[in-house]
Amino acid sequence: MSESSPLPVSRIALIGAGLIGGSWALAIRAAYPQIQITLYDHALRHRTEALQQGIATQAFDTLEGAVQDAELIILAVPVGAFPAMMKQLVPVLKPNTVITDVGSTKQSVILAAKASLGDAFPRFVPGHPISGAEKSGPLAARADLFKNKRVVFTPVSETDHDALAKVRLLWEKAGAEVHILDAAKHDEIFAAVSHLPHLLSYALVEELATRPDAALIFSYAAGGFRDFTRIAGSHPTMWRDISLANTEALLKELDAYTRKLAELRSALEASDGAALLALFQRAQKARTDWASGPTG
Amino acid sequence: MSESSPLPVSRIALIGAGLIGGSWALAIRAAYPQIQITLYDHALRHRTEALQQGIATQAFDTLEGAVQDAELIILAVPVGAFPAMMKQLVPVLKPNTVITDVGSTKQSVILAAKASLGDAFPRFVPGHPISGAEKSGPLAARADLFKNKRVVFTPVSETDHDALAKVRLLWEKAGAEVHILDAAKHDEIFAAVSHLPHLLSYALVEELATRPDAALIFSYAAGGFRDFTRIAGSHPTMWRDISLANTEALLKELDAYTRKLAELRSALEASDGAALLALFQRAQKARTDWASGPTG
Repeated sequence: MSESSPLPVSRIALIGAGLIGGSWALAIRAAYPQIQITLYDHALRHRTEALQQGIATQAFDTLEGAVQDAELIILAVPVGAFPAMMKQLVPVLKPNTVITDVGSTKQSVILAAKASLGDAFPRFVPGHPISGAEKSGPLAARADLFKNKRVVFTPVSETDHDALAKVRLLWEKAGAEVHILDAAKHDEIFAAVSHLPHLLSYALVEELATRPDAALIFSYAAGGFRDFTRIAGSHPTMWRDISLANTEALLKELDAYTRKLAELRSALEASDGAALLALFQRAQKARTDWASGPTG
Repeated sequence: MSESSPLPVSRIALIGAGLIGGSWALAIRAAYPQIQITLYDHALRHRTEALQQGIATQAFDTLEGAVQDAELIILAVPVGAFPAMMKQLVPVLKPNTVITDVGSTKQSVILAAKASLGDAFPRFVPGHPISGAEKSGPLAARADLFKNKRVVFTPVSETDHDALAKVRLLWEKAGAEVHILDAAKHDEIFAAVSHLPHLLSYALVEELATRPDAALIFSYAAGGFRDFTRIAGSHPTMWRDISLANTEALLKELDAYTRKLAELRSALEASDGAALLALFQRAQKARTDWASGPTG
């Protein structure tokens, strides 16, 4: 930034110092050292770690403290906390404050915002950065987490253009590539490529972990198991909230997947090598094509 | 190796120059530069690449050529090729030749060996190194692939102790940690920690790849999807063979997993956040404990 560039905002309130919120704040502070970032996080340890990491310039133990004078509020809490958080925000909002979020589901978040924000609803910009890790908390935050990653916005007809433009600029400065999607389409796509795989991975570990000989079984698990179950190390509360917030799309995906497993089971039971090979070949080709493409 | 150490064998025939066979040969040649390794692989490209990589000292386009004068034969071909390969081996075997394999299933391989090898069956040492990668072929081979990895032997009552000791020593020289398991137990364990995850990963990619909007869906896939589907990049023929060779154990695992998914589905449909959270928490703890343990 040259010194003459105008700041899009001078004071941001970060709600929740997890991996995503913390990394975003680090990226913004790197791009705009002049922007003040105030943090609200209910956990003392998170507030302490966030200040140590340079995620925020000031940390508060109340929402009110953090959002006073903020021109932009970014909600980086599990999506299950949204309805209560929105209600708490309403009385302390300034007339022009922009609000955005980083939730992994978008219809539920828009619904919560619409229900609570009233006149402020047009200044709510629903966002979702496509970048996660199985790690969580402020100590895992990194300024380059969003570099060359996508961030999806799902504005609705009411969404204010200037609010969207401000949030968009900040994300671009954080290194992300901005995409716009319809909220329902967003939720369908992420049920398929993210939410379902998390459920499937948790289910495998749970299935094996509850057996009497789990220790023996796990002792022979290797690289394939490691990759497949890496996302079963993800934050349980966050994934409970996502599951509850995107149930409809997730059930649809789970049912489609269960039908595919039943197909595979039939081929296996019939020792139908040709069918198994054809399926594995199509999947291998699709995986290889994806991995060698721009987003793989 | 000091020069006075006796060689366990002076000539080894490697059948199949894939990732596993190629890596084993590289490790053995590093440990014992005096051992001659002759290769049989039906693919000219594999033979050429294997010689370029230093995997073998000589390559043959017939099994007979490679195994003549070999004191030890290592079969590193997909398990589906075993029955035919064993039959081909019988007429060209020398009286004391030791035979071993690297197949991912063990009961089917033992059955094929027993059916074909006759008097030579006690000199067959069933083996399975626990180290894979989604890559395949001689160019992916590395001398350190088995370093600190497990290799499992599943000897039967007839297995000759000296044959097992020879094969064991070679694997230890390749850097592997030797474990002994009953063949049926081996097949059960690997159905759970390896074979099932491969099927589940192939199934997810196949399910998404066959949709009309597959390109859009894949364009939003990120890190979690990448890890979960890495093993869907595995060799389709190899996994068809493994599926067909370990069908019984795999069906049992698939059914247990499908029941677990049905449980998860019920919790999801009932919006039972407590049940979802409890399951995710147990899975996360088990995954984290495994990952921080000696084999994770």
